[in-house]
This record gives sequence, C-alpha cells and structure tokens, in this order.
Amino acid sequence: MENTLKVQIWSDVMCPFCYIGKRRIEGALANFKHKDNVEIEWKSFQLDASFKASPDDNIVDHLAVKYGKNKAWAQEMVDNMTQNAKNSGLDFHFEKAILANSHNAHRLLHLAKAHKLGNELKEQLLKAYLTDGKNVDDLETLSTLGQQVGLEKETVEEVLHSDAYSDEVKNDIAMAQQIGVQGVPFFVFDNKYAISGAQPEEVFLQTLETTWKEGNFTSKVTLVNTTEGDSCGIEGCN
Amino acid sequence: MENTLKVQIWSDVMCPFCYIGKRRIEGALANFKHKDNVEIEWKSFQLDASFKASPDDNIVDHLAVKYGKNKAWAQEMVDNMTQNAKNSGLDFHFEKAILANSHNAHRLLHLAKAHKLGNELKEQLLKAYLTDGKNVDDLETLSTLGQQVGLEKETVEEVLHSDAYSDEVKNDIAMAQQIGVQGVPFFVFDNKYAISGAQPEEVFLQTLETTWKEGNFTSKVTLVNTTEGDSCGIEGCN
Repeated sequence: MENTLKVQIWSDVMCPFCYIGKRRIEGALANFKHKDNVEIEWKSFQLDASFKASPDDNIVDHLAVKYGKNKAWAQEMVDNMTQNAKNSGLDFHFEKAILANSHNAHRLLHLAKAHKLGNELKEQLLKAYLTDGKNVDDLETLSTLGQQVGLEKETVEEVLHSDAYSDEVKNDIAMAQQIGVQGVPFFVFDNKYAISGAQPEEVFLQTLETTWKEGNFTSKVTLVNTTEGDSCGIEGCN
Repeated sequence: MENTLKVQIWSDVMCPFCYIGKRRIEGALANFKHKDNVEIEWKSFQLDASFKASPDDNIVDHLAVKYGKNKAWAQEMVDNMTQNAKNSGLDFHFEKAILANSHNAHRLLHLAKAHKLGNELKEQLLKAYLTDGKNVDDLETLSTLGQQVGLEKETVEEVLHSDAYSDEVKNDIAMAQQIGVQGVPFFVFDNKYAISGAQPEEVFLQTLETTWKEGNFTSKVTLVNTTEGDSCGIEGCN
C-alpha cells in the first residue's frame, strides 16, 4: 500500500510564471520514480482580487502605468517573459491577452477539482489567458473550457451563474496568507517543504526525492496491539 | 496550517462489532484535542461477498447451522452481542435482522463518500441492519437511506440501478487483503498504525495521540530555497 505524496500549488490564472512553473514541475515529475503516487492539488490565489478589467486594457499599457515606466520598458518585460516561456515549450501571446479578474475561473477550478479534473482545467485556463487570448472572466468562455475537460454543461453553468465555490477560493487565499505566500506559483510538498517560484526542474525533483525519503509513503501499517480486539471475520464474530 | 490526520476504517454493514467499534472511536475522538483535524474514511469490506440471502433466514438459525451448534448456543451468542452493544449505547435487534448481501450498500456508501456524507450513511446502514431490521440489500430501502442523509434521489437511483462503484468496493477489499486484514472493524491511522477490532476507547485515543505526535500535522512548511524563484506577486512578476 503506497501512499500519496501531495503537492499543493497556489497559483493564479493571470500569472505567467505559474504556467512556466507548471511545466517545470511536470518535467520533474516525468523523472520521478514514484510519480504515480504524486497528487497535484491546485489552490487558488489572486494577484489582484479587486481587479476590474476594462475592454480597452492591454497588458503593455497596463504594466507601464502600474510601474510608472514607458511602453518600451513594458514591452521589453513582456518580450523577456515570452522568451522565458518558449524555453519551457510554451507559446505566450501577450499581444492578445485579455486582462480579467480570475475569481470565476478559480471557482470553476474548484468544481473541476471535485471531479478530479483540476489538472486538466488548470492547463486550459492558463492556455486560454496566456496563449489563446481568451477572456477567462467571460462566463461563456469558462463554460466552454469546463465542458472541454469533461464537466457537464448543466453543472458548470449552475456553478458559474451562482457564487458556488467562492468560499473555497477565499479559504485558499487565506491559507496562503497564513503560511506566508508572497507570490505565486508556490508549491507545498506533503505539508512540509515549500518552493516559491518557478525554480529549475532539478529543484523540484530534489524536493520530491527528499519529501519521499522522509515521508511515510511506502511503509506498511504497524499493528498497535498484538492481541486482537473484538471483530468479525469470515469465520464469524469473536 | 494544521493538516488532517486520516483514519481509514474497513468495515461491513453486516458486522455487529463494526457498529460497536464506530461508537468506540467516536468516544475516543470526543476526547481528542485535535478532533477537528481528523478525517474518517470508510472503506468497504465484505465478510461474505458471495452471500445470498433467502427470505426465511433468521440470524439464530443461520449461526447455528454455520457453526454446527444448536439454537440455544446461537441465541446465547446473539444475546451476549446485544448486551455488549448496550454498553456502547446501541440497541441491537437481531430478532428482526434481515440477512443480506452488503455489496449494494457498499456501492451506495462510495457515492455518499464522494459527497462527504460517508459518516452519515455508514451510521444509517448499520442502524438499518442491526437496530431497525431493514433489508439493506433492497434498492428501495437503500434509496430512502441515501436520501435521508442528503443525497439526491436521481443520483442515488442511477447508482443503485447500475454497477457504479463496484470497482471501488473491490479495490477496498483488495487493499484490505494486501495489508493483511483478517477481520473488521480494522482501523488504519495516517497509513502508519493499525488497530484490529473494536478495542477499548483508550486504545483508540492513545493511537490518535501517538499518530498525531509522530506525524506532521502541526508543522509549518519549510522553504526549500532561501533565494526565491521566478514568481508573480501583488507588485508584479520577477
């Protein structure tokens, strides 16, 4: 009976390094002997929970204003990130990116998690924002993405047109604050070790190895009492 | 961030000591300081997976035949068990008990688990068989019990009128064999310690304390790298 090594990942749909970090840990997992016993749990984080997008926003202008710099500076930042993503096999298109609040995307992600489709939807949400230039706060877009990963249309729309899973999103963010998360992606291994940021694959692999070695993932259970208590077996109760 | 101490309990609906064991661990939990961080997971076990009941079966005759003894002997065994149950505040009525195969009950229990209603349904199933003299292999009875704990009628009936969750039942039983379970109830704490049988409350409490002390339930996460990796925070990505 091997046990599951749980990796919790706080991240935001709006976070380029979160997509890169996803590829890095996937790369590490591909080289991890016990990868079938690793469970990834996506936790919600919002870089800016109060963010309200307007239709005219584009990311270069947004960054220039936010940091009080000029457009050329912002464009260079975006180009560097695009190159960084390319090194991880990702195709970022910031020129198409639609700035949006990610609250609804996170709510949908919690629904997907409940159906063991969290990994699949997380991938689709990051791709939608960073590669495909889709509006991930648009309920129809979210509904389509949800159905693409295998969620039922009716369930998805019921969730999107309500405030379902809002508490789960808030709880995740509160938990991140509690453990001192300053930025995302933020990875927690077996509630024990944490990695902040999209670090190199080897760092993830090493941490997986250490966590596995120190944890209780392969152990057999230990019978506490050698004398058996009252129980029922195939031959009756005694 | 406190973590969850998971207690897995293999048991059968048809097992009197399982109901008594349930009360014993509940008693221990009531005195356990970290009880809010304990999660109970009910695992399926069948004392006799091939059992086919006939309408004329009664438990005293059944036990007498099974053990090649007379009815008086079987009646005494049943009376002792009833007294034992009474000491745990349980009201057993073997004279009303309807012998039945528990496969469908276990399938329904897996549905309930998926909706975080496992504890509630487990209680209702044990009560139905051991106290109320209900046929827990009867699909209508099961449907009513499922709805009583809060499952939706449509979902319950879809599961009951299919072979949904059969694999989960089989997997639980296979896992029990793998870890050497001979009888139920069988309790596994944090995949580490096991208790066989409905032992005294103090044994459960002690094991909870030991598991908690040795486990990683209150620890803070440890940052692996002091240098932060690439990440996005409220102030942007870097």
